[in-house]
Amino acid sequence: MKAARLYGSQDLRIEKVQEPTVSSGQVKVKVEWGGICGSDLHAYSHGQSPEPHPISKQSPPITLGHEFSGTIVEVSDDVKSHKVGERVAIEPLIYCGECYACKRGYYNQCSMVGFVGLNQDGGFAEYVVVDQNMVHELPENVSFEEGALVEPTAVSFYAVRESDLKPGDSVAIFGAGPIGLLTLLSVKAAGATKIIVVDISEERLEKAKELGATTVISGLREDIVQQILELTNGGVSIAYECAGVQPTMTNAVASVKQGGQVMAIAVFGNPVAIDMGQLLYKGANVTSRLAYRHVFPEVIDMISTGRLDVKGVITKKINLEDIVENGFEALINDKKQAKILVRPTK
Amino acid sequence: MKAARLYGSQDLRIEKVQEPTVSSGQVKVKVEWGGICGSDLHAYSHGQSPEPHPISKQSPPITLGHEFSGTIVEVSDDVKSHKVGERVAIEPLIYCGECYACKRGYYNQCSMVGFVGLNQDGGFAEYVVVDQNMVHELPENVSFEEGALVEPTAVSFYAVRESDLKPGDSVAIFGAGPIGLLTLLSVKAAGATKIIVVDISEERLEKAKELGATTVISGLREDIVQQILELTNGGVSIAYECAGVQPTMTNAVASVKQGGQVMAIAVFGNPVAIDMGQLLYKGANVTSRLAYRHVFPEVIDMISTGRLDVKGVITKKINLEDIVENGFEALINDKKQAKILVRPTK
Repeated sequence: MKAARLYGSQDLRIEKVQEPTVSSGQVKVKVEWGGICGSDLHAYSHGQSPEPHPISKQSPPITLGHEFSGTIVEVSDDVKSHKVGERVAIEPLIYCGECYACKRGYYNQCSMVGFVGLNQDGGFAEYVVVDQNMVHELPENVSFEEGALVEPTAVSFYAVRESDLKPGDSVAIFGAGPIGLLTLLSVKAAGATKIIVVDISEERLEKAKELGATTVISGLREDIVQQILELTNGGVSIAYECAGVQPTMTNAVASVKQGGQVMAIAVFGNPVAIDMGQLLYKGANVTSRLAYRHVFPEVIDMISTGRLDVKGVITKKINLEDIVENGFEALINDKKQAKILVRPTK
Repeated sequence: MKAARLYGSQDLRIEKVQEPTVSSGQVKVKVEWGGICGSDLHAYSHGQSPEPHPISKQSPPITLGHEFSGTIVEVSDDVKSHKVGERVAIEPLIYCGECYACKRGYYNQCSMVGFVGLNQDGGFAEYVVVDQNMVHELPENVSFEEGALVEPTAVSFYAVRESDLKPGDSVAIFGAGPIGLLTLLSVKAAGATKIIVVDISEERLEKAKELGATTVISGLREDIVQQILELTNGGVSIAYECAGVQPTMTNAVASVKQGGQVMAIAVFGNPVAIDMGQLLYKGANVTSRLAYRHVFPEVIDMISTGRLDVKGVITKKINLEDIVENGFEALINDKKQAKILVRPTK
């Protein structure tokens, strides 16, 4: 079968590889659509650790792709909860099941946490084998394209659920990439009223408006915080940090009101300076969440019942053969791209 | 009457001033004991803003002292809730009563918040006049010395109440000055089991042990975090930051477990760098609280019922005449001092 395997920095190859086979407790999925994520881009730009992952035992080259949907084509004999022909979305976390976090069900905080598609062969391939308990059935009215969006939606949706947001609150979202846009959809579904989105790209702000932002503010302006404070009579309840750099974090902290919260969803490359005086004066808090846990069924329900219309974040659909130029390079060079979906089979 | 008035940096003068007189809604208190606070030291070392405070309208020189107890000697005709002869502790916040925070009862977050004893004449004097609603009666079994400790205890107690602490949790306290020690007493009263205290002063650590720390660690060691993680099987539930500098904040963030919290009680002079990757991986949060609100009655009850034995933080009792040399200078130069109480009348 064909697979897009990452050998190192900027070295992603479409190759012929052996089809994977199921072991005990596993299912084999024919991939329909897979989305390209910021963490795929990071791995593509910077390469990956040469060490084998402690759970998957795999080291590069690894087939990328952790946001994907497909159809089950084979199940191991001991699998009773899923069957051949089932349409599914895959929850790609891999975890030990035995550490402090795993014992409590906090599998996203496993001390060895990894991802199918980053640390074990993933969804930019015709077939993937995954553990049965990480496979979630899609209802008939959820398309495979939407199925591929369940994973990134789960990131935003989980962070919103874990935040202190209450219906009627106003929020600010810093960063209008795919995670920022899916956060926008999630807070809208959760009852936020004023939804202010900040980004340096006018094209992304256009998309944010289209998806329901009540106000968009250019990240190039000097008076971002002042505008937010004026629009919200003193600050938003929650600022979602979906950019991961110092200026957006500084603005996020400055934009929340008394008792407010900064929820960081982005992965920060470096430590950031935080003005503790503002947290002190406001009694505000800063927190962060990694990935998701126990929310794929809820996300699928939200999509199925029309509460989350996620299709709007898709800006392009391509074939696996074109993944480097029309996928990875397009996302790096073209800011109007949000989510690009990849189809392994024509 | 005599009063200790701050004219500017390192210029605290004991002077003869007019006795204050009560206006509508106010009571006049004969001061029994007043404690010297870190914020008094900060004002003494660095001076104060020359601008008049927007609520008190007072500018320097101001009589210091915001941690004090005394006896009511006069009440305004319209005061019905307090009477002459009542033994009281004073809650020294001044606030506008009209802003976003005040309307919600968050008077410690008033946009113009100030302190009797920093922004309006305070308790290092024979008499003080304060608003009746900021005066709290002391039961017979709470001494005036303990009454002077209600204010700093309220700072720690409020932060502990606002933190995510649950009985049975383990905690770390960074900084064993008066606020660190009162935090130690508060978490003990709240059911914390392992109570780890970190400070660079061996004398302060001795005091912490005396007051109930289960482990003390020298802040000069290289392996502070490693020790805490080992002692607690992976991290404390809550780290209380009572020092307010970069190294202690860094260690606090590194010492909490998954889902843990850093509660900053100290006032930070500068922004601090925070490793967001740790917050992300742990799903931890960082927050802070300024002063207190609505907890003086609870603190007085805790002292009265023996749940908080705060007397142990008193290391010295002096007369007002000696406040500069035996009070302020002693606290600056002698790390074995914790709380020094000042008596305005011999």
